[in-house]
Amino acid sequence: MRFTVVAAGAGSTGPRAGVLETAHGRVETPVFMPVGTQGTVKGISPRELREVGTRILLGNTYHLYLRPGVEVIRKAGGLHAFMGWEGPILTDSGGYQVFSLAALRKVDDRGVLFRSHIDGSEHFLSPEKVMDIQMVLGSDIMMVLDECPPSDAPREVVGRAVERTVAWARRSLERVGPRPPGRGLFGIVQGGLHADLRRESAQALASLGFDGYAIGGLGLGESREEMLAAVEATTEHLPPDRPRYFMGLGTPAEMVAVIARGVDMFDCVLPTRLGRHGTAMTRRGNVVVRNAAYAEDFGPLEEGCGCYTCRNFTRAYIRHLVSAKEILGLVLLTHHNLHFLHRLLAEARRAVLSGRFEEWSQEFLGGFAS
Amino acid sequence: MRFTVVAAGAGSTGPRAGVLETAHGRVETPVFMPVGTQGTVKGISPRELREVGTRILLGNTYHLYLRPGVEVIRKAGGLHAFMGWEGPILTDSGGYQVFSLAALRKVDDRGVLFRSHIDGSEHFLSPEKVMDIQMVLGSDIMMVLDECPPSDAPREVVGRAVERTVAWARRSLERVGPRPPGRGLFGIVQGGLHADLRRESAQALASLGFDGYAIGGLGLGESREEMLAAVEATTEHLPPDRPRYFMGLGTPAEMVAVIARGVDMFDCVLPTRLGRHGTAMTRRGNVVVRNAAYAEDFGPLEEGCGCYTCRNFTRAYIRHLVSAKEILGLVLLTHHNLHFLHRLLAEARRAVLSGRFEEWSQEFLGGFAS
Repeated sequence: MRFTVVAAGAGSTGPRAGVLETAHGRVETPVFMPVGTQGTVKGISPRELREVGTRILLGNTYHLYLRPGVEVIRKAGGLHAFMGWEGPILTDSGGYQVFSLAALRKVDDRGVLFRSHIDGSEHFLSPEKVMDIQMVLGSDIMMVLDECPPSDAPREVVGRAVERTVAWARRSLERVGPRPPGRGLFGIVQGGLHADLRRESAQALASLGFDGYAIGGLGLGESREEMLAAVEATTEHLPPDRPRYFMGLGTPAEMVAVIARGVDMFDCVLPTRLGRHGTAMTRRGNVVVRNAAYAEDFGPLEEGCGCYTCRNFTRAYIRHLVSAKEILGLVLLTHHNLHFLHRLLAEARRAVLSGRFEEWSQEFLGGFAS
Repeated sequence: MRFTVVAAGAGSTGPRAGVLETAHGRVETPVFMPVGTQGTVKGISPRELREVGTRILLGNTYHLYLRPGVEVIRKAGGLHAFMGWEGPILTDSGGYQVFSLAALRKVDDRGVLFRSHIDGSEHFLSPEKVMDIQMVLGSDIMMVLDECPPSDAPREVVGRAVERTVAWARRSLERVGPRPPGRGLFGIVQGGLHADLRRESAQALASLGFDGYAIGGLGLGESREEMLAAVEATTEHLPPDRPRYFMGLGTPAEMVAVIARGVDMFDCVLPTRLGRHGTAMTRRGNVVVRNAAYAEDFGPLEEGCGCYTCRNFTRAYIRHLVSAKEILGLVLLTHHNLHFLHRLLAEARRAVLSGRFEEWSQEFLGGFAS
């Protein structure tokens, strides 16, 4: 897997434009990755993903491991073939889901024992097993298993999670060995809001030599200032020639602020979840189109938007669909929201390339109500 | 609105191929019309409808009248503009829904008083009001308000419903007057399973001179033989140069049998409803793809099918989506099921045109398990 920074702002931690070359194609960064939790991005087909501008998507190892199970996907020829998506796929390690969604039974140096949120069955995941699963899935980008302490965990708990995550990262590298062509393995920086733990985590992972680095454990309730400080405390200790991925961020204003600090990749359920709940993302902020105020609004979700939804349907129609609980309502909103985020990040990239990211970001944030 | 029979089998009640010319385009018959109950065919967008072969769809006056309401659709510029569908639309009169879905308060010669199934509010629909609503909707084909007695109603109740439906049909014609170019008004034949009442109803309506004739009150639990006998008792008394529409039929074997008896148009929620419940329609009968038997079946829903779903996805994948309650599962099934029915009726048409409907229908029915 290759990553090339084609343009960068001030220093190694300013905004940058890059190109990621994977076994399933080329991805320009900054990039937003829609979340395909259960082998599908909720409410949108692969060809529509391509149409709205998706170039890489995220799969959830935890969910796919539980259902349909790794054997089914192996027999299908891997996750790309199973779900009919020909572009690159990044799979997470399942760590976040095990720590947030499953009934956690026990964590020790060997791995995590947990109960499925679907049927209560007991499962064990180790760093090695998580690698084996992602190799079978055929992910273009694999993530190491990490320990994710709660956002309000005491410092010593966060510190131990950093140590264990680094130890697990080393074992993950050993398990995978040389990566197949066009495929990569990312480490995950933990450390909560503690600048010294973030530094320690970033440096330790960087010295192990990953193909990219994720920033984990943020966007979990801390303030915007705390989040941005933690990003800064991380990126300055990461190799400038490798991609950086902020896990779980999808709010426009925060993404722009984090891109400004040298991050290249994002994923979030926000655009699809908002779509399912009757809300459109626009340059002026969210439009809760299910509100009665839009019952006779015959404009598009967003003026000037070129997506299928905005070219063909009105707020009044979509509001009707949402009120009547019609599937097409959430489908059209999901389509628009993903198109919106992809377009936003493509604009950010062009702004970096033309050397005017700062002006662009001021202009965007000036018109945006988060 | 023009209708031309371009080929017909034996007599005026054999299978036929026709062309319907409406204000929003040309429709070849026999034709299946997907049901767009609330201003959308459930689980599929207008451009995908076009792709699967939909040429005309059905809108439900009852549902649209209650939500979003006629005023919203008027302001949107009519139903075509509101829902983004550029092809022809047939709207039903709401009669069936009032008699089956709403809490019926009172029926008399003036019309029907009922309570909304959504919020319990009280509404009154007369034959005239139903015409006014459909004129605002901008339907290419409007249906008269009819009285639909339950399928097990005594003969005298059915007889009175026939009389009232004819009286209402006359008032509907008077209300509309000369139809605008490319738009038509259909009468609805009632009479239950009584051949003499069917004849009486058909003859009375035919003498009034509608642009087409619907067969109502069937497919409600009677046996296949009773249903077909009632169709025969109807079609022989209908003008041969006008389209005939069997309301609410969508099972493949029955459609083929009814086409053989001179019917041109169909609508049904079956393909979309089966799709939402994890079932695919195929030439060999229904495939309940949500069953565990398909967990590792990597073939398409139907061999040889050229739809987007069958070209790109396996039964195993769709089964996984259905199990995981993912929207894309029902979306892909709905897409296939509509494509299947449209293709089936296009084949029936070609068989009529080539003078081999009988062989074609034997061949189809021989391989089909209903």
